[in-house]
Amino acid sequence: MAMNGVLRPGIIQIRVLDIDDAITHYRDRLGLHEVGTESDGRVYLKGWDEFDRHSVILREADAAGMDFMAFKVLDDSTLTELTADLEAYGVEVEHVAAGEQPGVGRRVSFVIPSGHRIELYADMDRSDFHPGTENPNVWPEEPRGMGVARFDHALLYGPDIDKVSALFCDVLGFRVAEQAHLGPDATAVWLTCSNKAHDIAFVPNPDPGSFHHAAFFLEEQNHVTHAGDIMAFYDIPIDVGPTRHGITRGRTIYFFDPCGNRNEVFAGGYTYYPDHPTRTWETDELGKGIFYYERELNDAFLSVYT
Amino acid sequence: MAMNGVLRPGIIQIRVLDIDDAITHYRDRLGLHEVGTESDGRVYLKGWDEFDRHSVILREADAAGMDFMAFKVLDDSTLTELTADLEAYGVEVEHVAAGEQPGVGRRVSFVIPSGHRIELYADMDRSDFHPGTENPNVWPEEPRGMGVARFDHALLYGPDIDKVSALFCDVLGFRVAEQAHLGPDATAVWLTCSNKAHDIAFVPNPDPGSFHHAAFFLEEQNHVTHAGDIMAFYDIPIDVGPTRHGITRGRTIYFFDPCGNRNEVFAGGYTYYPDHPTRTWETDELGKGIFYYERELNDAFLSVYT
Amino acid sequence: MAMNGVLRPGIIQIRVLDIDDAITHYRDRLGLHEVGTESDGRVYLKGWDEFDRHSVILREADAAGMDFMAFKVLDDSTLTELTADLEAYGVEVEHVAAGEQPGVGRRVSFVIPSGHRIELYADMDRSDFHPGTENPNVWPEEPRGMGVARFDHALLYGPDIDKVSALFCDVLGFRVAEQAHLGPDATAVWLTCSNKAHDIAFVPNPDPGSFHHAAFFLEEQNHVTHAGDIMAFYDIPIDVGPTRHGITRGRTIYFFDPCGNRNEVFAGGYTYYPDHPTRTWETDELGKGIFYYERELNDAFLSVYT
Amino acid sequence: MAMNGVLRPGIIQIRVLDIDDAITHYRDRLGLHEVGTESDGRVYLKGWDEFDRHSVILREADAAGMDFMAFKVLDDSTLTELTADLEAYGVEVEHVAAGEQPGVGRRVSFVIPSGHRIELYADMDRSDFHPGTENPNVWPEEPRGMGVARFDHALLYGPDIDKVSALFCDVLGFRVAEQAHLGPDATAVWLTCSNKAHDIAFVPNPDPGSFHHAAFFLEEQNHVTHAGDIMAFYDIPIDVGPTRHGITRGRTIYFFDPCGNRNEVFAGGYTYYPDHPTRTWETDELGKGIFYYERELNDAFLSVYT
Repeated sequence: MAMNGVLRPGIIQIRVLDIDDAITHYRDRLGLHEVGTESDGRVYLKGWDEFDRHSVILREADAAGMDFMAFKVLDDSTLTELTADLEAYGVEVEHVAAGEQPGVGRRVSFVIPSGHRIELYADMDRSDFHPGTENPNVWPEEPRGMGVARFDHALLYGPDIDKVSALFCDVLGFRVAEQAHLGPDATAVWLTCSNKAHDIAFVPNPDPGSFHHAAFFLEEQNHVTHAGDIMAFYDIPIDVGPTRHGITRGRTIYFFDPCGNRNEVFAGGYTYYPDHPTRTWETDELGKGIFYYERELNDAFLSVYT
Repeated sequence: MAMNGVLRPGIIQIRVLDIDDAITHYRDRLGLHEVGTESDGRVYLKGWDEFDRHSVILREADAAGMDFMAFKVLDDSTLTELTADLEAYGVEVEHVAAGEQPGVGRRVSFVIPSGHRIELYADMDRSDFHPGTENPNVWPEEPRGMGVARFDHALLYGPDIDKVSALFCDVLGFRVAEQAHLGPDATAVWLTCSNKAHDIAFVPNPDPGSFHHAAFFLEEQNHVTHAGDIMAFYDIPIDVGPTRHGITRGRTIYFFDPCGNRNEVFAGGYTYYPDHPTRTWETDELGKGIFYYERELNDAFLSVYT
Repeated sequence: MAMNGVLRPGIIQIRVLDIDDAITHYRDRLGLHEVGTESDGRVYLKGWDEFDRHSVILREADAAGMDFMAFKVLDDSTLTELTADLEAYGVEVEHVAAGEQPGVGRRVSFVIPSGHRIELYADMDRSDFHPGTENPNVWPEEPRGMGVARFDHALLYGPDIDKVSALFCDVLGFRVAEQAHLGPDATAVWLTCSNKAHDIAFVPNPDPGSFHHAAFFLEEQNHVTHAGDIMAFYDIPIDVGPTRHGITRGRTIYFFDPCGNRNEVFAGGYTYYPDHPTRTWETDELGKGIFYYERELNDAFLSVYT
Repeated sequence: MAMNGVLRPGIIQIRVLDIDDAITHYRDRLGLHEVGTESDGRVYLKGWDEFDRHSVILREADAAGMDFMAFKVLDDSTLTELTADLEAYGVEVEHVAAGEQPGVGRRVSFVIPSGHRIELYADMDRSDFHPGTENPNVWPEEPRGMGVARFDHALLYGPDIDKVSALFCDVLGFRVAEQAHLGPDATAVWLTCSNKAHDIAFVPNPDPGSFHHAAFFLEEQNHVTHAGDIMAFYDIPIDVGPTRHGITRGRTIYFFDPCGNRNEVFAGGYTYYPDHPTRTWETDELGKGIFYYERELNDAFLSVYT
């Protein structure tokens, strides 16, 4: 009863230009576990601290970007209720049959006003490679590379963010943990359905369906600098960091996968509760909100996305 | 909708033998903010990362221990519903009028089978000393001492833990994140109403109403060793640590306040979701569960409490 | 016998525009201990992990910059020998009488080809505020602000760096731990007289006697990010970081004091031995050498100094 | 000139009961690089941050313990001088021909009053696997296991420690950084020939030639807790820690190799200079000196050695 409805971001499907380069990046550098490749060529991966079968799907395509992001909900009846709520709100919903992804039950899929495809699902098989449950060690195996624990959230760019925010809050039970005024009539929002400071975030931009970054969680703050050492060693381009966000307070690095999709690894961030006020950033303090130490945006933050 | 019902542990009232010694300990060493002292002599404090007026109450008394622990619920109608649910479950409920604690609304109070007093409340004034909400800094002021961010949870000792666990799960919406079999018919439980690995925990013990420790959250894992340095510098007795828990995975130190109440400072711990299985520890692996590096219990863990 | 000759950078005298602003910065933000103010207005400070009376001197002046940097040598006979060696090398040496700085013995002072004043001395009184020697705690008192442990080194800009490097190596027993080719006939050098990766560094620049930064040592790598939080909280301008150096490997932040002198706080860095080869950076990899994560210089690094 | 004479502990030869188990432990768990196995069965390893060919030698034998520890000196003429000094002091010196260990020049070997074999050498080949020297990365390869950077020091048990200390200080140029009075006529010493807080240490004990532990350096303090996680994951027995030493201030774990030799991994420790006073620990504060948080010795510290 204490936690219900939408639980968490559970799946992200990312388009990559070269699947082998992408596997090396996401498996060996980020340290995700490779679950397997399906006959359609899609590659499935997961973090060491996730119970479910997979969380990241790589799909080779002609252009980088994000295909969709899916949220796991508490159970099938919740999925049914939320579907009805979406339809009552005027959202056109598609049904994806169980098994379209291996080990995943039926999904409900819809496009939000910013042009992004969002999905809900209630069931996924448990992975064979999951955190221990009987006298468990901290890890199921010794971490590799950056050692990312899980897919955590995404930041998306697109139009009509006010409508997107309303949909997530009014229908799906999210709350606005933080907002940033980028200008008149342009407010970025960090939305949460949990105790995390954010589960998804949106920044206003005229290009619909744009992908700013997928974020992966690191267990401890000092893993962020280790991740930076990995990036320098393997010559992975860093966008910004290691630094800290004013917004959400996470310690963070933004970097790029081999075809230009932005990734984030981060740790920390405050514990959010529904009785917390929304934190607000004014335009002239936005730099500090995004990059707490530098206190100014770099050019790439607003202009580079896939 | 995503988070509702019981939100979090919000208040703990601790009995101390000497109020001045206790203030020095909790304010200057742990780094809590002193809110004020009321006419009945109770001293109110809070962590720098808490929005509400207070979270820790110190009461001078003839014996150390815990008077009660109170959980904040989403809103007043939730409080009404949970009260009805408790009464339907057969729990005898007392009503504490708004204002019995300064700035706190009505509370519902009851004694659980282990002999502990538990309370629920929905309203507390916001502190003047709270995390910023307009272009906020990470801290409202530079941290002092151990720099604890918030009161986080308590571990309690008493009889009939199976009944306690059932009450928390069946009525209050908690889930058993972890359990440890201490022996036949004796199972300790770590209960959560959130994404935290635990919000309250119970260990079977014949002494009703016993208090094992109150835990305070540190923002980063490396703050645990800094806290240890503070304890050594001020000659605060350490029970165990710095070490790590197998159970919940937090990095931790157990230590004692001047009159013998056990405190914990910790950081980290995994992110719990309601679809996660309960993790189980067998008796012969319990040492590793409690102290992951030492892999055995110290004598004090089971025998020393207030 | 194992360590002799020049021991370490022991004193730096920095010019500041407003002495009160500077005291707040160096004492309360960096966390240096204020030793006292002398009748000539100079303010003396020291780090908590230094035994000697002082290490940082602030002098109010019309222009920011560095007056001189002084190295402590093993003993008075070493001072006599090194003075003779300097004179034999053709260096014009001035003698500063004992007591010109309170608690400091006779000093030998000379200007090096880059235009900087360098001094040697063998004796300084022990501070009353020094690391404990009888059953000592880790700290003599709880650290404040960034908690810098000691003045560690300086980086200086000026002409004729090849001659400077030869003087330090041939006469004073330093070694070139690292060198960076900034261009044809322009090589920056990182010089050490100890197991530290650098005790002083020089970058070629046409302006004689220029001051790039004074660096202060932090005990642990994670103190670097805490220092960054202090800088953001008190709105201290950051030049670069938190980041890491390729050169020396330290984790670091460059920032500015209130009148524009650059400071560094850093931690880590490898252990250097005299049988180690000099590490060399080519021009096109210099960005990585200076800022290991960003892998490019910022504009300020080469152009901003006092 | 600034550093000369004895540079550092360069080689330790450890006896193990099962060479394959030992290789797994020292290579895969500690993360040493395996250099190779010679025809006499000895296995050579080194840390990733060492330039020389090897630093750790494992020899299969019937009893655990240490065969010898060797110090690298500045150059061959230093070796000749120190040999003469040793003989003048009355030490019986053996000469080991170049090549007895692959890639190592002539060694001078002698037994000290505590019964330990100590050696000096000036030349060793550079490893193919050494820290980079041309635009180097921080690491030569991604660290594995605990990621130890180097062999750092040993702590030895035996009789006549006063004589040992005199020999190291009077002949080899070491200094006593710290001493601990274990009782009347029993003083333990921590000796340094560098800026490290200790390069070798001795504790009085009636058993000559006894081996307390070999210590390996970790680059950052937070690597100590990672090492603890590795130990718990692979069920490596921990003696004490993660904790901190009062003596030398290092963050540390003591643990055991598969045949019972004690290892230490540690990070930090203060920077020592020859003008620092010796720090002294009284008997009743020795617990705090050894284990700064626990403030008492465990039984094993004084009684378990090989």
